[in-house]
Amino acid sequence: MRIAITGAAGMVGRKLTDRLIADGTLNGTPIESLHLQDIVPFEPPSASFAVTTETRDLADPGVAEGLAARNADLIFHLAGVVSGEAEANFDKGYRANLDGTRLLFDAIRLREGYIPRVVYSSSIAVFGAPFPPAIGDDFQPVPLTSYGVQKLIGELILTDYTRRGFMDGIALRLPTICVRPGKPNLAASGFFSSIIREPLAGKEAVLPVSRDLVHTHASPRSAVGFLLHAAGLSSEEIGPRRAITLPGVAVSVGEQIEALRRVAGEKAVALIREEPDPAIASIVNFWPQRFEAIRARDLGFTAETSFDDIIRIHIEDELGGRLQ
Amino acid sequence: MRIAITGAAGMVGRKLTDRLIADGTLNGTPIESLHLQDIVPFEPPSASFAVTTETRDLADPGVAEGLAARNADLIFHLAGVVSGEAEANFDKGYRANLDGTRLLFDAIRLREGYIPRVVYSSSIAVFGAPFPPAIGDDFQPVPLTSYGVQKLIGELILTDYTRRGFMDGIALRLPTICVRPGKPNLAASGFFSSIIREPLAGKEAVLPVSRDLVHTHASPRSAVGFLLHAAGLSSEEIGPRRAITLPGVAVSVGEQIEALRRVAGEKAVALIREEPDPAIASIVNFWPQRFEAIRARDLGFTAETSFDDIIRIHIEDELGGRLQ
Repeated sequence: MRIAITGAAGMVGRKLTDRLIADGTLNGTPIESLHLQDIVPFEPPSASFAVTTETRDLADPGVAEGLAARNADLIFHLAGVVSGEAEANFDKGYRANLDGTRLLFDAIRLREGYIPRVVYSSSIAVFGAPFPPAIGDDFQPVPLTSYGVQKLIGELILTDYTRRGFMDGIALRLPTICVRPGKPNLAASGFFSSIIREPLAGKEAVLPVSRDLVHTHASPRSAVGFLLHAAGLSSEEIGPRRAITLPGVAVSVGEQIEALRRVAGEKAVALIREEPDPAIASIVNFWPQRFEAIRARDLGFTAETSFDDIIRIHIEDELGGRLQ
Repeated sequence: MRIAITGAAGMVGRKLTDRLIADGTLNGTPIESLHLQDIVPFEPPSASFAVTTETRDLADPGVAEGLAARNADLIFHLAGVVSGEAEANFDKGYRANLDGTRLLFDAIRLREGYIPRVVYSSSIAVFGAPFPPAIGDDFQPVPLTSYGVQKLIGELILTDYTRRGFMDGIALRLPTICVRPGKPNLAASGFFSSIIREPLAGKEAVLPVSRDLVHTHASPRSAVGFLLHAAGLSSEEIGPRRAITLPGVAVSVGEQIEALRRVAGEKAVALIREEPDPAIASIVNFWPQRFEAIRARDLGFTAETSFDDIIRIHIEDELGGRLQ
């Protein structure tokens, strides 16, 4: 099996790459080659199969065609700019998330006889308030950010191209990935991870919102699991609705903190400093909170069942299994 | 008030033009000028105010910019290719319905200080099966045609550009317009109109589907009414969800025929010849049937309340008020 990943240098892309290299197979089929694309430079990993890399912008002329010409059986399309950046920089967001995606899908469409499985990372940002208490699989997506609009347009083109037989696509509406490794970033959602990650590393973290705020999370390990599971589903199982809202752990910030107390003790919790930020609160209060995700569970997608597990996975995967 | 219409030579565009010229005002404001654009040539109408016309393709370079430069306070964006054509001709559909719309919205966005009201004709084709018995305002749109995908992408860009303050858009999901005047066409939905229009003109009509099939209709007069009403709504009334599913008359084909019998008698009904066409049935059986359209009614959009009225309006508006 030949695999390509766009946005391979991103957090999820790197973890997916590592997993594919560690496994050497995908859903029982040996991996022959892996092609990694990203706009930012990254270290080519070593593997028991051929790995090629390309540091180019998918929205530049010819790049998407070049990627399609590699004839990967499976493309993980993860490339794109994140929510905050797409909102702050109009042109960059539409170019990367909409034009880049359309160019890739068109390059696949125009390649005679080439019908790869395409696993596309969409987002729960396709949903905009007001919401029901739990968002069902039939609830309308009406994004309230440019990022959400761009991701939803990608889903729609993927669905149409799949129906027409140009490709075999599946779009995954990923929940917030938590605990995000690395340094704190400026994303409005960053505190969901930093209030866990920083105390686990013995550092202080700021909580800018109320402890009552509910949100849905899945670990980076689950995110990779979602992508691999999607790659193995048959087109018949997926059916005509190609975008799937994924499951996760719906917890309040207070419950996140209680889980941290159970896993890492009072000392960790004491490092969380409450510092309400009305600007962040006004953004996150419009975010979706809970999802039914019945279709995804029926299709075999699984996430953690408790936030304690999400914290333990972070300790295993990022901290070598040990607390500081 | 300066008004522009794209797709002005289409059936709805022509009726909208006639109505604006007849009224001379829109929602109480005198009309200063009317600019009409279409890809196909059309006769410039005469009016008490200035009327300009342009026969060019909105997707050609510079055309959208030229239209935005006219500084219309209100743009009715009706241009596009119809469902059957968008399905049969991939490139034409994406070019006209997606690229043309995006170019227009971008031309508006890039014109400094220009924030027109844009009334965009979307369609119930944004919905794809399976459906609930009646489609509620919160039901997810998952189109099963390229036309539906293109219309929905237009809605999304309109919603994002409106949220960002680039324009003041509203998208109307029009039901099937019936009775469509003119000659029978090859659209799969054509029979809904032809089984009424042809018998009223003393001609035979073919019914290719079961009499049990339910569908939602509104008259061409209502379609124009929807557009004018949308033009007058305040942005606050519309709120952040800019796409509105419109009301109509949900009837079975059998009920359509009974209405024809009441309005035009047995002689007209006898001209309908049943000739089942499995190809057409397989298409229309996947179409949405009923809509709740509660939001639209709350916003003051009104349609006919019986199919008898839809037939009477056709007789008044197309047949000079008299049966043959």
